[in-house]
Order: sequence, then structure tokens, then C-alpha cells
Amino acid sequence: MNPQLEIFSQGDEVVTGQVVDTNAAWLAQQAVLMGFTVTRQSAVGDKLEDLIALLHEIANRADCCICTGGLGPTSDDLTTEAVATAFNLPLILDTHALAQIEQLFANRQRVMPDSNRKQALFPYGAERLDNDNGTAAGFSLQVGRCWFVFMPGVPSEMKPMYTHKVQPHLAQRFSLQPSNLTTLRTIGIGESAIQELMDTLSIPDNVQLGFRAELGEVQTKLLFPFAYSESEKANLVNQIAQQLGDTVFAIDHTRETNSDLISVLNELMTQQQHTLAAIETVSCGLLTSLCVGADWLIEARYQPVLNHSDLQALAVELQKTSGATIAIVQGYTGDKHGVMILHNGLLTPHGFYASTQTITGALKRKQHQAALSALDLLRRYLQQKLGDSSHA
Amino acid sequence: MNPQLEIFSQGDEVVTGQVVDTNAAWLAQQAVLMGFTVTRQSAVGDKLEDLIALLHEIANRADCCICTGGLGPTSDDLTTEAVATAFNLPLILDTHALAQIEQLFANRQRVMPDSNRKQALFPYGAERLDNDNGTAAGFSLQVGRCWFVFMPGVPSEMKPMYTHKVQPHLAQRFSLQPSNLTTLRTIGIGESAIQELMDTLSIPDNVQLGFRAELGEVQTKLLFPFAYSESEKANLVNQIAQQLGDTVFAIDHTRETNSDLISVLNELMTQQQHTLAAIETVSCGLLTSLCVGADWLIEARYQPVLNHSDLQALAVELQKTSGATIAIVQGYTGDKHGVMILHNGLLTPHGFYASTQTITGALKRKQHQAALSALDLLRRYLQQKLGDSSHA
Repeated sequence: MNPQLEIFSQGDEVVTGQVVDTNAAWLAQQAVLMGFTVTRQSAVGDKLEDLIALLHEIANRADCCICTGGLGPTSDDLTTEAVATAFNLPLILDTHALAQIEQLFANRQRVMPDSNRKQALFPYGAERLDNDNGTAAGFSLQVGRCWFVFMPGVPSEMKPMYTHKVQPHLAQRFSLQPSNLTTLRTIGIGESAIQELMDTLSIPDNVQLGFRAELGEVQTKLLFPFAYSESEKANLVNQIAQQLGDTVFAIDHTRETNSDLISVLNELMTQQQHTLAAIETVSCGLLTSLCVGADWLIEARYQPVLNHSDLQALAVELQKTSGATIAIVQGYTGDKHGVMILHNGLLTPHGFYASTQTITGALKRKQHQAALSALDLLRRYLQQKLGDSSHA
Repeated sequence: MNPQLEIFSQGDEVVTGQVVDTNAAWLAQQAVLMGFTVTRQSAVGDKLEDLIALLHEIANRADCCICTGGLGPTSDDLTTEAVATAFNLPLILDTHALAQIEQLFANRQRVMPDSNRKQALFPYGAERLDNDNGTAAGFSLQVGRCWFVFMPGVPSEMKPMYTHKVQPHLAQRFSLQPSNLTTLRTIGIGESAIQELMDTLSIPDNVQLGFRAELGEVQTKLLFPFAYSESEKANLVNQIAQQLGDTVFAIDHTRETNSDLISVLNELMTQQQHTLAAIETVSCGLLTSLCVGADWLIEARYQPVLNHSDLQALAVELQKTSGATIAIVQGYTGDKHGVMILHNGLLTPHGFYASTQTITGALKRKQHQAALSALDLLRRYLQQKLGDSSHA
């Protein structure tokens, strides 16, 4: 079994929601890839008794804990004091750390305020983690079952400390078996429909299946344990991909670049040397906006209303006037604020393709669905999944 | 003493860091404004035993707990089952909820998959919270010391449920002393420049000052304690607004509608009966995209390149061909991928105005800055802050 790891964030600004805790997500991702099982994330404010209670809990519950925040010089920075009190350890002045802090102030041509002295105090038995980017050094120590790592909360100080000092140490200290994540990314199929297709397959018990839905896209995630047979993995992924059919626009593997729909389109459009012109209605500029930086988008226009009966003629004209190899046009019928029938038309060197779908909900939701479905129609064409256009 | 509230987020995608938990921060902010003390945030994955353990802890520790996630139809959505098991409550089929889910599928012209049936099961004694934007209804119930509220994790479903159903109920159920938040929203001035201006004012110790910067906009936040004098408050806000000058596009007060730049523009454009046509370059469809649903945007176009020397002539032509009362045109000089000089032109019934600014960073950052600065130029005109156009 993987060692269990918890993330602990400290600070009033986190617990009251003034800042979104991006450190926790970043650290959890790092830990999962290393082979830890992340079991819990917790955040508490600048209250000594809350900090002490949480430290006691974690010391009995986890094999490793990564804590950020509360190492600053001010009176509301309480992490070190909380560790010392919780685990009954005296605080020891680290003269080397003190000299480093004084040096940092000297480099900035300032005198060190007295309050910074406390940043050179560490609980007895702790190993200091130098901070190359600020005054708040971190530290780590074993208490009960748990190896605790304390780091500053400022991301630009925390991340290099984690990467250069904490991660190599954890890799040595724990016997880790990194897992592998494969993500099948789909558009045009819902989460529950995917779940039903999965039920017809037998997913091995040791492969963890998860889903994530996000404005039009659904991700099916497979977490494979360490040393899982590569051929069995390829086989399973292939089976699932076949079940999901042409709704799959990309398959991501651990550590590979994140293949969102736009990056997939970028590659296909560039490879096949196509250019695009578009007329948007429901997606109201969002299709264009998502393509920012794409040289193949040579012209785009927003028109508030477009009758769908004109779509093919309009696409022919747009292709001609723009000089683009592909033209997308979009229209709708029905109620703009209610149930809407969206029509996408795609004119290509192989002919004209059309798609129709019912969309509902708030205008922004419709806008997203319209942009994604138009771009996905283009993706299907480029991946040669649209077949003969004569019936379209 | 304020009632103590905890936030509980459920899901492998949260605890493993695949998604940043923005729900927790949002809910914590809401709870603080209502007068709760937020003592802890916790996240665990899709593991029944971890969910049960955390539910038991919180039932003994907090007066209120707001939980998100795990209410979906798939096998890894375990919240309802965990609540039933943890507190020894049978699951009851809610026929009204089932009918609602079936209706939702019927509206989308689809048949409800069997897996969605579990979303109509609730622990005995729970009060159902209808979801107006999806199939996952929430529920709430008292266990031990704690009033638990369970909501879906999808923000577009959770936020309206919280605002319309949960918040009014909590306000009735608990005896709360709400604080008051005033937010001054600015575009065109940086966070550190605002901080320097603030240093010249004396902010009372019991008023909490905070800042939040987000793609082009900076928010200056003042948290006033319960029963703070209204006149002193108005006086302080007024002083700060004067310091910030015409960079302020809106001042929000607790519980009022969120006045983002688009809603401010919506009101001004409608009141003054204007219509807009636009040509975007750097903002690449984003300006149009942000205006989704605005009837006053009658035409918009994306052009990859536009030399800034043509701007005024182009605006005159665009105004004429589109029939809009106002035309925005955008061009740039310099390096698309490096330091870029952005030029916005605004043609109005009172004349032509232009703005020029240097923008840097990734293309997406430039896109956002370009869209916001063009819309902000329009806002300044509509709020009559641009003065005589003859020198523009």
C-alpha cells in the first residue's frame, strides 16, 4: 500500500476564503505522481489551539504531512510555536539560520527587524530547510507515525523549496511506487452515458476509475498502479476508446502535455495546412476567443441572428471571400433564452457537413456548448471521422 | 461568539489536486460575511471510510458544515451513502426528486439512465434542496451539534443553490452578526499603486483592508464589523474612491449584485440607447465573448492584423456600415509574442477617442488586457469621464 500523505494549509486568509489555496492542489498533484496516496487536505486559521489539534490528528493518521504557511515574522505566524507546543519540544535558536536572515536584509540594504529573529527558532530535533527566496526557512521532523514537512506559504518560495529540497528527500525516505494516470478526453457524450458504457467492460479492481465533467468536455481517468503491465494497460485503454468511439478527441498520459481540444486542433490544422473562417451566433465570439494565437484562424465574425436555412450558402460565400480552406457557420432556431436548436455547418474541401443539437440553460452555458460543438465538428473532420458528406 | 462553520469538499479530483477547490474559498467568504467564524476547511477523496470519519469529526466539532461534491450519478459519488452509513440513517426514495430528474432528461430529449435514480435517494430526516441547474439535488440535516448542508460540486449548480436556498435558511436558523463588505472595483491601476495611495489615508483598526487582483481588474476590499456607523463608513469609502479617481468603475456592497464591468456597461448602454460594433485584433473574440446576451452589440469582427494608423478611418467606416452609434476598433504595433503596443479607438457621437498601452506576457494575458481596456474605454465614455475629444 502507498504511504498516506496529507496536505495542511495554515492561515486566516486561506480558511476565510480571501485567497484560493492553490498550494494544496499543486502539492497534492506532486505527491500523487511520486506514489503517495493523498488522503486529506485541511486548512485552519491563525489560532494556536486549532493548529495544535490538527497536528495531533495528523501525527496519528498519516505517514507524511506537507504543511504550508505560518512561518513569517509576524505575531499571527504560529506554525513553529504550535509544533513545539503540540509535541512538547523546546525551541532552539539556529545561529546559522539567523545569520542567513541577517544577510538577506543586508543584501537589501536594510536592518533586520527584531521580529524576524523568531524565524531562526526551530523545534528540537527538526531539520532546517533553507529558503533561497525569502526569510522563512522551513523544517521537517518525525512525530509519531508522521514525517512532517513545514514550508512557507508564498508559492514562489514554497515551490522551489519543495522541488529542490523536499521531493528528493521524500523519494529517499519512503519506498514509493509511482502510479500512472491515463485520461480519455471526450466531447459530445455525458458523464452518465460514459458510466453506462464502462459497465459493459470489466475494469480490473486495481485500476482506479474516475470522471470529471467541465463545460462540454468529460474526462475519463484511469489510475494504474505501479508496474502495471504496459500491454494490459494499452489493451484496456484501447477497449475503452473503442466504446467511446469518435467522441474521444485526445488521450493523455502522466507527465505528457495537457491535450485540450484547441491544442489538438492546432496540431491537426497546422499538419494539414488548413485555414479557417467562421461566423458565430450562439457562441458569440467564444469560438474565436478560444483560438487565440492560432495563425490558421484568418477571419471571424459575430452575427446576432442567422437563420439556419442559409447555412450552406453562407458557408460557400464565406469560404470564397475569406480564402480559407474551411468555413464554419452557426445558426439557431427556437428560443434564445429557452430551448434552442443549434445548427453548425462546416464547409471543407470534401464537402459540407452539418450538426444539429438541442441546448438549454443559461446563455453562457449555451455559448460554451455552441463554441465547443462547432470546434468539435471541425476536429471530427480533421481526424477523418465524419465519413461521406453526401448525406450530411 | 459567532457560530463555528466548517467547509467540507469531497472528491478524488480535489484531494489529488486535479482541480483547485474554488468552491471552498467562495463558500468561506459567504459564511464570513453572514457572521460565521470559519474554523476549518477539509477535503477527502471518494473513499467511504474517509468520508465517514470526517463526517463524525465535524458533527462533534462545528455548529454548521457546508459540504460540496459527491452527489452525482456515478459509482464514485458517495456522499449520500456516507451520510447514511455514518449516522445510521436509512436511504429513502424521494419520488418528487425522481420526477424532477426525469423531467430534466425529458427536456433535453433524452431518457434518464438508471444510474441517475440514486440521485433521488436521501437520508431519512433530510430536507431536500432542489437543483435548478442539474440533476444533483442537495440536502441538509442536523446531526449532533452540527447542521450539515450538502450541495453538488459543480460551481454553476452550487452557487445558485447556496444563494437562493441555503443562505436564507442559515440566516433564519442561526443568530448571526453579519459584517459588511464594500468592494471598490478598478481597471487601469495596479495593486501596489493602490496600496501606496491607501498609506496616505488612515483606515480604522477594526476595518479589515484587503486586495484582490484578477486579469486587469483590482478589487480593494473593506470589511466593516457588525453595526459599524453608516455615516463613517460612507465617509471612508468616499475618501478612498476620490483617491482612486476614474479608475473606479463600480462600488459593490455586501449582498448587492456583483457589478462586473459588463453589467455596468449593460446598464449604461441600455439607458443611453447606444449600439456597438467592434473590430478586434489582440483581444481575438474575447471582447465579443464577454458581451454574450447583450442586445446592444450588433456586429463584431476579428481581424488578425490591423495597422493602428488606419484606426479612425476604419471606425468611421464601421460605424457607417453597421449602423451602430458607437464603434470600437483595435490595432497593435510591436511584437505579437513580445512587448506589444495596443491601440484602442472609440468612435462616438461626441467624437473619436484613442488609448495606447504597452502590454506584455503570454498571448492569453494580452488578450484579456486588450478586451478589458477596450471595454473600459467605452465605460469611461459612457460615464462621461473622457472629456473633450478634440485632443484625443
